[in-house]
Amino acid sequence: MNPVTWTPEATDGAARAGSLQTPHGTLPTPGFMPVGTRATVRALTSADLVECGAHMMLSNTYHLMLRPGAELVAAHGGLHDFMAWKGPILTDSGGYQIFSLEPKITEEGAAFRSTYDGSHVALSPERAVAVQEVLGPDVAMVLDVCVGLPSSREVVKAGMDRTLRWAERSLAAHTRPDQALFGIVQGGIDPELRAESAHKTAALGFAGFGIGGLSVGEPANERNVALDAAIAELPPNKVRYVMGLGDTEGMLDAVARGADMFDCVLPTRLARHGKVLAPDGDFNLKNATHKQSLIPLQVGCACFTCANYTRAYLRHLLTTGELSVMRLLSIHNLHYTLNLMELARLAVIEERFDGFRRDHHQRRGFVADE
Amino acid sequence: MNPVTWTPEATDGAARAGSLQTPHGTLPTPGFMPVGTRATVRALTSADLVECGAHMMLSNTYHLMLRPGAELVAAHGGLHDFMAWKGPILTDSGGYQIFSLEPKITEEGAAFRSTYDGSHVALSPERAVAVQEVLGPDVAMVLDVCVGLPSSREVVKAGMDRTLRWAERSLAAHTRPDQALFGIVQGGIDPELRAESAHKTAALGFAGFGIGGLSVGEPANERNVALDAAIAELPPNKVRYVMGLGDTEGMLDAVARGADMFDCVLPTRLARHGKVLAPDGDFNLKNATHKQSLIPLQVGCACFTCANYTRAYLRHLLTTGELSVMRLLSIHNLHYTLNLMELARLAVIEERFDGFRRDHHQRRGFVADE
Repeated sequence: MNPVTWTPEATDGAARAGSLQTPHGTLPTPGFMPVGTRATVRALTSADLVECGAHMMLSNTYHLMLRPGAELVAAHGGLHDFMAWKGPILTDSGGYQIFSLEPKITEEGAAFRSTYDGSHVALSPERAVAVQEVLGPDVAMVLDVCVGLPSSREVVKAGMDRTLRWAERSLAAHTRPDQALFGIVQGGIDPELRAESAHKTAALGFAGFGIGGLSVGEPANERNVALDAAIAELPPNKVRYVMGLGDTEGMLDAVARGADMFDCVLPTRLARHGKVLAPDGDFNLKNATHKQSLIPLQVGCACFTCANYTRAYLRHLLTTGELSVMRLLSIHNLHYTLNLMELARLAVIEERFDGFRRDHHQRRGFVADE
Repeated sequence: MNPVTWTPEATDGAARAGSLQTPHGTLPTPGFMPVGTRATVRALTSADLVECGAHMMLSNTYHLMLRPGAELVAAHGGLHDFMAWKGPILTDSGGYQIFSLEPKITEEGAAFRSTYDGSHVALSPERAVAVQEVLGPDVAMVLDVCVGLPSSREVVKAGMDRTLRWAERSLAAHTRPDQALFGIVQGGIDPELRAESAHKTAALGFAGFGIGGLSVGEPANERNVALDAAIAELPPNKVRYVMGLGDTEGMLDAVARGADMFDCVLPTRLARHGKVLAPDGDFNLKNATHKQSLIPLQVGCACFTCANYTRAYLRHLLTTGELSVMRLLSIHNLHYTLNLMELARLAVIEERFDGFRRDHHQRRGFVADE
């Protein structure tokens, strides 16, 4: 029996609502996972994530295997206890991080240098699985080959094919019964390759499917074409996770196509630069127009930051370099993102998702595609 | 009727327990005020202060008058609402901050350049009172003349005399009925000057008394002599606040002499450098001995950090530069300091304070004076 299952609850066109059951609880979908790269979401604690409304979070195999090392995490009883997060955790495999390190990739695996100390590190599909079994998340991801965009069709296809072969090796290596392993669909922005990758990855029988290699700077319409092609080949009873996607327009467009899960550093990264997510358009709190503003970041927002502080106070902290503002803005942006997914879920259940998405785009000055 | 009063509850030798009533609640004494220089304790929120056990906090007139400006704070309804802190607040007058800015000091007041933009700023005793009335803390402090140590007796005496004349002007200028004004005793480490300053400041009839110009690097025994001389001349029914003192040995030595209140950036500043306060000796969390330690910072500590995290996890955050550790270590160090004051208070009430103080010093490798 699979330790992680996705149960559909409602559909509205291609959009779906459901829930992902894991050994550590449930992620209602559509759902967003905050990113805790090094076993902490930047500037936040696990208690803050609960307060923001997070159900599930993501951490990074690549970073944790190097610092502090998977064995130390295991000595704590695993990642949940290490970071005091009781909910579900997904770890990525490291493929995406390695991709930026000019790795030497062979059929065996990837060899690269640590960002921490320059030492040589090797990561194979089997080792990525083994490390994640030691870390102990609810969901582990296969090691995949990420190809930069744009690349030639040959390069994209070669990466996709190797990802498929690695996926088989990963499945064969995976043993931990209380952990699910998700496959990853690759194929760049080529709909034929995406369809082929999705079809063949689905045939391997994973408990869920990541759609990788997107949100790397490609135009939204090209991403959406790739998503359509991939999702059409994925089984309807398994969860679909668009990796690295976190801008609100992009997520709602993906939900409209049948995607269920997302993760991204964007909400917290923007926060650390003073950029605030808001329904009628994001804004930069450093802007002098907020200097004497006695309203919260978002009127009516239920987050801790909006419940307690004015824009003027937060801008004061920001312009004088006070650390506390990094946390306060991160809380708002995460709450905003998580709440948007809740609203999207409700809209699917109430069969009014397309209007919800169009209204969201319009208020923020985006044009929704048909 | 005075808006701020101190009520004695118990004595043990010269040490005293009591409570300081203010319009925003009570500070049990001996008591420590965390320092929120710019209307935030670095890396923390007001909710964190409550969680740490803080009853009263301090903020800085000098910083707030320059950034964001007292009028903006007043537009929020005052400092309490600005920073969402419901408890009592004391603001210092700016005298100590100005002291480091090479001010031009005349009988009228101090002229100096802003640390923020280099602009010329003037602060007189009357203006310091006026700004604090606009900011709205429960306790305002008079503008004092801080003299560096060591200085000649003439220089120390001249500063002390001017502080006395400024104290009279401050009292005459103060009008806000829901705010107390505290005088400040000066006089360096000269016991005669300290006694004279305390006697004459007491005669002016303030609601409470700061003892300023100490904790600036002087040896502990010289500070203690100065404290003895000052406290002997202060009225027994008024609160005594040793400004800027926050190391645990120093505070307990001052409590033993009849001091009631303290403030210091030390606990949070140490935290931001990875230094952890602990009963058996402070330690640096960066030290490799903690790398695999599965125990909390302090076994048995009830703070949020110790309740949730191991030394190994916190050291991982510290060595990888994660912002969240600044908050987590600050929470522990503040909780430790505030808890120490609670334990000291209990020891006074139970008439075992001297043993408590000696035990504290001994466990941390200090020799308690007689």
